[in-house]
Amino acid sequence: MTWLDDSIMMQRGVGAHREPVQHHLTEELQKTFHYTIGPYSQPVLHVKPGDRIVVDTRDAFGGKIREETDKPSQVLQMPFVNPQNGPIMIEGAEKGDVVAVHIEKMSPRGADPHGYCCMIPNFGALTGTDFTALLNEPLPEVVRKIKIDEENVYWSRRNTLPYRPHIGTLSLSPELDSINSLTPDQHGGNMDVPDMGPGSITYLPVRSPGGRLFIGDAHACQGDGEVCGTAVEYASRTTVRVDLIKQWNFAWPRLENEDALMSIGSARPLEDATRIAFRELVLWMVAEYGFEKWDAYMMLSQAAKVRLGNFVDPKYTVGAMVAKRYLK
Amino acid sequence: MTWLDDSIMMQRGVGAHREPVQHHLTEELQKTFHYTIGPYSQPVLHVKPGDRIVVDTRDAFGGKIREETDKPSQVLQMPFVNPQNGPIMIEGAEKGDVVAVHIEKMSPRGADPHGYCCMIPNFGALTGTDFTALLNEPLPEVVRKIKIDEENVYWSRRNTLPYRPHIGTLSLSPELDSINSLTPDQHGGNMDVPDMGPGSITYLPVRSPGGRLFIGDAHACQGDGEVCGTAVEYASRTTVRVDLIKQWNFAWPRLENEDALMSIGSARPLEDATRIAFRELVLWMVAEYGFEKWDAYMMLSQAAKVRLGNFVDPKYTVGAMVAKRYLK
Amino acid sequence: MTWLDDSIMMQRGVGAHREPVQHHLTEELQKTFHYTIGPYSQPVLHVKPGDRIVVDTRDAFGGKIREETDKPSQVLQMPFVNPQNGPIMIEGAEKGDVVAVHIEKMSPRGADPHGYCCMIPNFGALTGTDFTALLNEPLPEVVRKIKIDEENVYWSRRNTLPYRPHIGTLSLSPELDSINSLTPDQHGGNMDVPDMGPGSITYLPVRSPGGRLFIGDAHACQGDGEVCGTAVEYASRTTVRVDLIKQWNFAWPRLENEDALMSIGSARPLEDATRIAFRELVLWMVAEYGFEKWDAYMMLSQAAKVRLGNFVDPKYTVGAMVAKRYLK
Amino acid sequence: MTWLDDSIMMQRGVGAHREPVQHHLTEELQKTFHYTIGPYSQPVLHVKPGDRIVVDTRDAFGGKIREETDKPSQVLQMPFVNPQNGPIMIEGAEKGDVVAVHIEKMSPRGADPHGYCCMIPNFGALTGTDFTALLNEPLPEVVRKIKIDEENVYWSRRNTLPYRPHIGTLSLSPELDSINSLTPDQHGGNMDVPDMGPGSITYLPVRSPGGRLFIGDAHACQGDGEVCGTAVEYASRTTVRVDLIKQWNFAWPRLENEDALMSIGSARPLEDATRIAFRELVLWMVAEYGFEKWDAYMMLSQAAKVRLGNFVDPKYTVGAMVAKRYLK
Repeated sequence: MTWLDDSIMMQRGVGAHREPVQHHLTEELQKTFHYTIGPYSQPVLHVKPGDRIVVDTRDAFGGKIREETDKPSQVLQMPFVNPQNGPIMIEGAEKGDVVAVHIEKMSPRGADPHGYCCMIPNFGALTGTDFTALLNEPLPEVVRKIKIDEENVYWSRRNTLPYRPHIGTLSLSPELDSINSLTPDQHGGNMDVPDMGPGSITYLPVRSPGGRLFIGDAHACQGDGEVCGTAVEYASRTTVRVDLIKQWNFAWPRLENEDALMSIGSARPLEDATRIAFRELVLWMVAEYGFEKWDAYMMLSQAAKVRLGNFVDPKYTVGAMVAKRYLK
Repeated sequence: MTWLDDSIMMQRGVGAHREPVQHHLTEELQKTFHYTIGPYSQPVLHVKPGDRIVVDTRDAFGGKIREETDKPSQVLQMPFVNPQNGPIMIEGAEKGDVVAVHIEKMSPRGADPHGYCCMIPNFGALTGTDFTALLNEPLPEVVRKIKIDEENVYWSRRNTLPYRPHIGTLSLSPELDSINSLTPDQHGGNMDVPDMGPGSITYLPVRSPGGRLFIGDAHACQGDGEVCGTAVEYASRTTVRVDLIKQWNFAWPRLENEDALMSIGSARPLEDATRIAFRELVLWMVAEYGFEKWDAYMMLSQAAKVRLGNFVDPKYTVGAMVAKRYLK
Repeated sequence: MTWLDDSIMMQRGVGAHREPVQHHLTEELQKTFHYTIGPYSQPVLHVKPGDRIVVDTRDAFGGKIREETDKPSQVLQMPFVNPQNGPIMIEGAEKGDVVAVHIEKMSPRGADPHGYCCMIPNFGALTGTDFTALLNEPLPEVVRKIKIDEENVYWSRRNTLPYRPHIGTLSLSPELDSINSLTPDQHGGNMDVPDMGPGSITYLPVRSPGGRLFIGDAHACQGDGEVCGTAVEYASRTTVRVDLIKQWNFAWPRLENEDALMSIGSARPLEDATRIAFRELVLWMVAEYGFEKWDAYMMLSQAAKVRLGNFVDPKYTVGAMVAKRYLK
Repeated sequence: MTWLDDSIMMQRGVGAHREPVQHHLTEELQKTFHYTIGPYSQPVLHVKPGDRIVVDTRDAFGGKIREETDKPSQVLQMPFVNPQNGPIMIEGAEKGDVVAVHIEKMSPRGADPHGYCCMIPNFGALTGTDFTALLNEPLPEVVRKIKIDEENVYWSRRNTLPYRPHIGTLSLSPELDSINSLTPDQHGGNMDVPDMGPGSITYLPVRSPGGRLFIGDAHACQGDGEVCGTAVEYASRTTVRVDLIKQWNFAWPRLENEDALMSIGSARPLEDATRIAFRELVLWMVAEYGFEKWDAYMMLSQAAKVRLGNFVDPKYTVGAMVAKRYLK
């Protein structure tokens, strides 16, 4: 028995013991990629809880950056960046339920796969931006084209980084709003949490019938904060298994892996994202693991880990974690 | 000649010298009020630049709070608050243009008019909220029912406040997103700027064909910051004249009145809202009033005024102002 | 009878009805100006409550910038900026008391008086700074030398601004800390509130025996936010009357003028400064003006005014105001 | 050869190859503990670069909390918390140099050692505070008395945590200011970075002759963020070796351990602390490891790790890390 058998998804998912049907969401089937996540777009796939979906994602630049001489400011046209696959309808998903997304595998697509990392004017953690509105000149535009394979990211002559893929943007639809794919929030969105890779399960609350799952923005690797604004962005073949947990009520995304549970908050300023993540984790420990509230709060003060996800998007993302061994 | 004849709207609006047609957007015509501002809803009215529209707005609670014994947490159902009239299509409005909205008059609707002010759990400037996520107990729910007329707001036995109405939420549609009516941003939205009352002209950049004007959230009076979370919310009859200024490019809402120009930014943290407002004002002075950039920046350091709009919504709103007399 | 007779200072000050002794704190008497505000420096003057002090302040650059060709980065040496007069010991001032500072008059010093406004690298509201640490190139250094008199600030050929002087930095000593004169906090400090000019009374809580009053940083005029980082900085002759109010307990500076009471908060992010200002104002209304807490909070939501003081220093400053007519 | 031989301290410290003299800073020798860190206090010890000091620290509550029935609000008296040992003068330390502090060992002091963790009113990450000033009722006061030994922290019947000690507050003196021991800043201070334990070297820039080293605030363990406001606070015997690196110029604390280099920023909002940490790390990689600036920035976007130190003090602390293997 692996940790997965003992996961919340496998313990509580209505499709946990179904034989999964496998779907393949190809570019052809997807046809129109989405730049806004909401209830107004046409579903591309209908699946049952427990099904497996192989998703062919485009990179966050929509494949428009191919060479190091390309200028992001010329090639990219806001708000048409970070294209998303979906919406995928999960049978039976209703407000008050939760969709579980287990990422099983992420591979680069195509022959001779490359990722791209860019410095985009007025975007990133160490520059004035559209929101942190300054009068300084923007930083230069820089494009890096990086060879990748399933073992490594060949960053530079000097540095080879390990291939540690994850999904940057994972969402269900809000109830009424339609939110651009650059922004993370309660619905998930562009969280850029490095833990959201193969071996992780993300739990997203359902707010619209069928849940309407969107997925995209694969990263071959990413540091905490994604500080220059982009990771090693690549076109992936990502395999997920989705399931449905009925009547599980919470507000913000959650993540589980072999060792830990994580609550994820997205907000500005960064302290609000962190507060959300911790409050949700306290409430989770109280509601489901038998902790008294102040005991949970004080123990996290000694034992929590924090992950900075994105530190560059319209809202910043923080994960607060507790080791599963403390929840037994 | 009044200041209005000399306003940007009257100088540059394509309908400035048309004989206005007057429209009345009644509750019956509106039928379905909107809780999200975007390109996906059905227009309720088509007007020409220069037309006048009398809009019957509902209060921000949708009329659901009637007595001081009503409990906001029971009566209100998120996200169905702050109902908006519209969308109103302005003939000829295209991306790259600007819609001008001159508020001419705001009156309370109905016999024996009242406004309502509430403390809503986890909402307001001096309480933990959904974003500033804390473990403290929420503040109590309180409802105030306040008699109003066109002269006064009868706040309490002790204090009568002057009737100083304004529109809290004024928007054009984003290009792709649909944004809940509680949030201000580049499209306008729930700015809660007290200057946005009769005698003001608001300029909003067009991002969707026809502009798609939404309006609502009338306040009989409001302090800077709207700190308890709500103003004196009332159902209004609001008269606006709309016009269209072709090819005027800027990102954030602007406002003009007899004495001053204002740029309006909405963001968190509050410093980012303030930075946006000031940067936009500097750029405006440079682009249209012949100021050298550093001269504009340094002069604002001596002569600007700042208005805090909302300090309670998902994004905070700040206006930066310069007196028109310094622009001559 | 003027409003002053009815002010808190005149109603409660222990020296209100003493015949004031007048002191003159000349540069010679001051000798060593201070760059840090604390309990470790030698007093330059001992006064009694009710006394009047004429203070000869230096400009915030210590007089080191004299021409538009001077480079702030070469001429100024951190942390030796914003020189302060003081400490002035107020007889009888003890922890738990409050010192009142009524600014009576501010005049430019010297023949042919000028003020100076600078853009200093990595300082100001619309640039990366030491704290908002970015990789952008700094803005250019610019120095403006501005003729001033007691009526006008001759800003540019185009714009003459009214002379509206105020004191930028006004402090009592903290109990243990010694805080650089650039930073505002509970002790007062570099608040840069334009209302703190002639006709205002500032109330500062005593934390160290004798209070230890520091004063400096005169501005011939200043906009809300002081956004380029500096006002029209000048050497002033400032006349204040000081008094002592026994056993008045509060944490943050307060201000009174003819029309309004103001609470002043200094913090980052800007929302915390604003929260402090408003919470203190609510508590003041409850403690001394007979308001029920939620009534005060909700009424401020309709009637408060906000002043942005500095928006450039290590902590930002915000004043929250309520009109005195609502307190009767 | 261990990593230590290859550390910056051992490579560049002027005392690296001296035979260390060992000093013992007992409570008796310390006599007066300090609550403010600055240039105005009397040295307790003079050491040479390369010397070893055994420091007997008090817990952050000054030993005033002994039982779970003690009330922090009654027993603690602000600002007299977080007592510091020191100042220790390092021979030859001058402005422009850096003091290295290698923590070699941390043990609990006394028989039957315990640590204490408290929830203090209006202090902590998930409550309104003096700065995030709200009107909510404070959280309850809670005190936990926790048995500790050199292997474990016996948190509760349910959870035993590993003993992972670190020093919460480590400082040199500012040039002019004297800063309370609760606040972290450029001088070090109350950073609460869990990595600052045995096996780490902290580098602090000298701003005052002799450096004036202060140390205190030992934690038997602490989670990222120290969210309830306190860690497992205990009286320690901490052994450090100090050294001096001449003419090494940087602004913010740095840390080295076997695997990584870290830059440490302290500010509010939390994004500014994070920006500082990352900018300093970029500048470090450029200045000393041969990276081109944009290459460093973009590689950190793929490979950096972030540590949240304190998320509760007057300034928040963030460490940005890069693995040493990428610097070769």
